[in-house]
Amino acid sequence: MKIGIVGLGLIGGSLAIDFKKQGHQIWGVSRKESTCKTALEKGIVDYVSTELSSLNSAEVIFICTPIAKIAPTLESLVPHLDPQAIVTDVGSVKQPIVEACQPLWANFIGGHPMAGTTESGINAAVSNLFQGAAYVFTPQSNSPQITEKLAILQQLASSLGAKPFICSPEVHDRSVAWISHLPVMVSASLVAACLGEDDPDVLALAQELASSGFRDTSRVGAGNPELGTMMAEYNSESLLRSLYAYRDNLDQIISLIETQNWQALSKLLADNYQARPYYLN
Amino acid sequence: MKIGIVGLGLIGGSLAIDFKKQGHQIWGVSRKESTCKTALEKGIVDYVSTELSSLNSAEVIFICTPIAKIAPTLESLVPHLDPQAIVTDVGSVKQPIVEACQPLWANFIGGHPMAGTTESGINAAVSNLFQGAAYVFTPQSNSPQITEKLAILQQLASSLGAKPFICSPEVHDRSVAWISHLPVMVSASLVAACLGEDDPDVLALAQELASSGFRDTSRVGAGNPELGTMMAEYNSESLLRSLYAYRDNLDQIISLIETQNWQALSKLLADNYQARPYYLN
Repeated sequence: MKIGIVGLGLIGGSLAIDFKKQGHQIWGVSRKESTCKTALEKGIVDYVSTELSSLNSAEVIFICTPIAKIAPTLESLVPHLDPQAIVTDVGSVKQPIVEACQPLWANFIGGHPMAGTTESGINAAVSNLFQGAAYVFTPQSNSPQITEKLAILQQLASSLGAKPFICSPEVHDRSVAWISHLPVMVSASLVAACLGEDDPDVLALAQELASSGFRDTSRVGAGNPELGTMMAEYNSESLLRSLYAYRDNLDQIISLIETQNWQALSKLLADNYQARPYYLN
Repeated sequence: MKIGIVGLGLIGGSLAIDFKKQGHQIWGVSRKESTCKTALEKGIVDYVSTELSSLNSAEVIFICTPIAKIAPTLESLVPHLDPQAIVTDVGSVKQPIVEACQPLWANFIGGHPMAGTTESGINAAVSNLFQGAAYVFTPQSNSPQITEKLAILQQLASSLGAKPFICSPEVHDRSVAWISHLPVMVSASLVAACLGEDDPDVLALAQELASSGFRDTSRVGAGNPELGTMMAEYNSESLLRSLYAYRDNLDQIISLIETQNWQALSKLLADNYQARPYYLN
């Protein structure tokens, strides 16, 4: 197939590498000349341009820009598209993107490949990034036309070694709020609370004694600040829904400790012990 | 030296293994005949008994029982002790233990070697468990007598490859509340909150999509329920102090998202990003 990729960073570049290996023809687009040059030199793409008009014969296009640029990119892309072209994106939030993009292009289907590394940019792009990862698609309709396009995207995702899932944008956003965005805020509050300790002896010893328990629980709350803020901004409704539920559960634990209800606390912890494996497929 | 070890589980057994290798004479005590037999068979101890009176010539005694049994064990031990004997414990909370034990024995010095595995019991005992671990001592006085005894304990801790720290029981308990007990409750609330999701589609997808971020943040909240409850029970004052501060920080994050103050949220996350390495020595 002729595959267009807009935005040649970690995700776009890694998609290009894997698709090119399979024999697809890869047309890359980047705003930056230097990125275009690197992509060609590394053999990540077959053709590259700074112009969206270069994608006029692409059959499938992946928009791999930052979230805020996805809808504006599609808007600029539309005049150049083949009427049958499928457009998808790779943003980590789906409802606002689908709402903005679907009216612009009937063959737009939101997507979210759940893979990444701590690196970014074209030099971070690697082969097999999506091997074993979930890849969620959020079609807005089940018309024959969309069902056919969706099947093509699912097949492409499977060819990367990813596991495709289909759901509504809302179910996607609520689910990732639980397992991805809420943990960032929960973990961020932990680091922030520790920093607020006003006894310097306690703070100094805490820093010395911190080991794997603290390390694991604090990790995602001390990651890329722009990414954390962007998650909150674009998925604020679902994130707040999860945060309120989380706060209720925290209040319940605080109350069990205040009232010294050790039996109920033990039951709650035992329920967690039983339940957590279901989140670790 | 003649070293007595009461309670031959993971910690007591592992101390015995390392001290015996160094040429100390190890006198083990366990309530269970079967544990005594295993300890002898494995060569973990030189002598073993179910009777505390067997420790009448021990120079240093480590009480390695569960927290609730530490003070009662010392009380039963006192009539048999050599007047110069140093007694220490390995409990993960210090204030209630020191308050109960210090009046029983002037040469009692609280201790907390911060090492462990998910296993327990004598069959989990291993050599070098304490290599690189923090080992906190909480002496109640700086009299010449206690200073001399403390130096012996510090030397023993160093001989295990551990890093000794000296602080008050209160500073210890507040510090471990931050880095060990608070993360358990923060993480437990996360698992409990997810389980409360009432949309089965969202819950099912969340379980499918959960990956490293959720796995790390939820780990310590889904560990041994008895251990989590015991932490809360014996360190409830310091833990509640940390939990209240944590809830304030969580409320602040919720409020920043509610008011869409992305700049302040980004600053908070950036501060965490800067600060976390100080907890990861």
